[in-house]
Amino acid sequence: MKRHILSLMVENNSGVLSRVAGLFGRRGYNIDSLSVGETENKRISRMTIVVTGDDHTLEQIKKQLNKLIDTLTIVEIMPENAIIKEVMLLKLKANPSNRSEIIEIATIFRGKIIDVSQETITVLLVGDETKIEGFLELLKQFPIVELVRSGMIAIERG
Amino acid sequence: MKRHILSLMVENNSGVLSRVAGLFGRRGYNIDSLSVGETENKRISRMTIVVTGDDHTLEQIKKQLNKLIDTLTIVEIMPENAIIKEVMLLKLKANPSNRSEIIEIATIFRGKIIDVSQETITVLLVGDETKIEGFLELLKQFPIVELVRSGMIAIERG
Repeated sequence: MKRHILSLMVENNSGVLSRVAGLFGRRGYNIDSLSVGETENKRISRMTIVVTGDDHTLEQIKKQLNKLIDTLTIVEIMPENAIIKEVMLLKLKANPSNRSEIIEIATIFRGKIIDVSQETITVLLVGDETKIEGFLELLKQFPIVELVRSGMIAIERG
Repeated sequence: MKRHILSLMVENNSGVLSRVAGLFGRRGYNIDSLSVGETENKRISRMTIVVTGDDHTLEQIKKQLNKLIDTLTIVEIMPENAIIKEVMLLKLKANPSNRSEIIEIATIFRGKIIDVSQETITVLLVGDETKIEGFLELLKQFPIVELVRSGMIAIERG
């Protein structure tokens, strides 16, 4: 079981996301994260899909993805040759007395405090998986009110 | 036709993404962006879906989403009361002579230069839609080699 990052360019047709996700779901292949957004061409979207599973099944899924009329290109991104980033918004329960500890940890990770209320504090963090997981690990003593992650996006170097 | 931001908590079952996306696709409702990632509970994922369409159809889709066994909660996020962010990786064609202009624009937008090769430069930018679109507008004179956007993630204030 290995983790794979796929980068797909697809035509922005109605139902394309469901068709792509369906190919993974039908084979019981779990999608760890998926991000889809517009490119410079409004007719074309780019998806970054992170999945964990065996190589053989993935090869079959890739073949089927290639057969979809929506699919323009499929590239498997190799982490050692890519830039991989994710954005996270994390809202923690905090009061004036423990707020400064959270701010301190956020600063070390170059996170940004973007909202504070009497009972909560919200941090924005951008980074690779190691950084985000490390940040969450350090803050797990504080109750999480809400956590949203974008899923990874990836681009090849050079 | 209005833009809507939905935040869904779903059980991380096989095929859930395809089922959710399918409800939009079957009604011809276009998904502008979608991000799905893990939460603090590995069994639960959070999706942020941005769609454009009429209110009536969206109400019907929300009802059907509620009927899915995977769905735990659905919240429509109101932009005026939320923090909305996206991450973008942008690789531009650039040479040593025009590189500094790109770096200058990136600095103004608090973008980060994360890769430079002889013929390309890659910028990381985090922000709301206005910021990202404004940045792209200023840089459109440079040929885009690759552009990846995570899609928006959103969290309510306070």
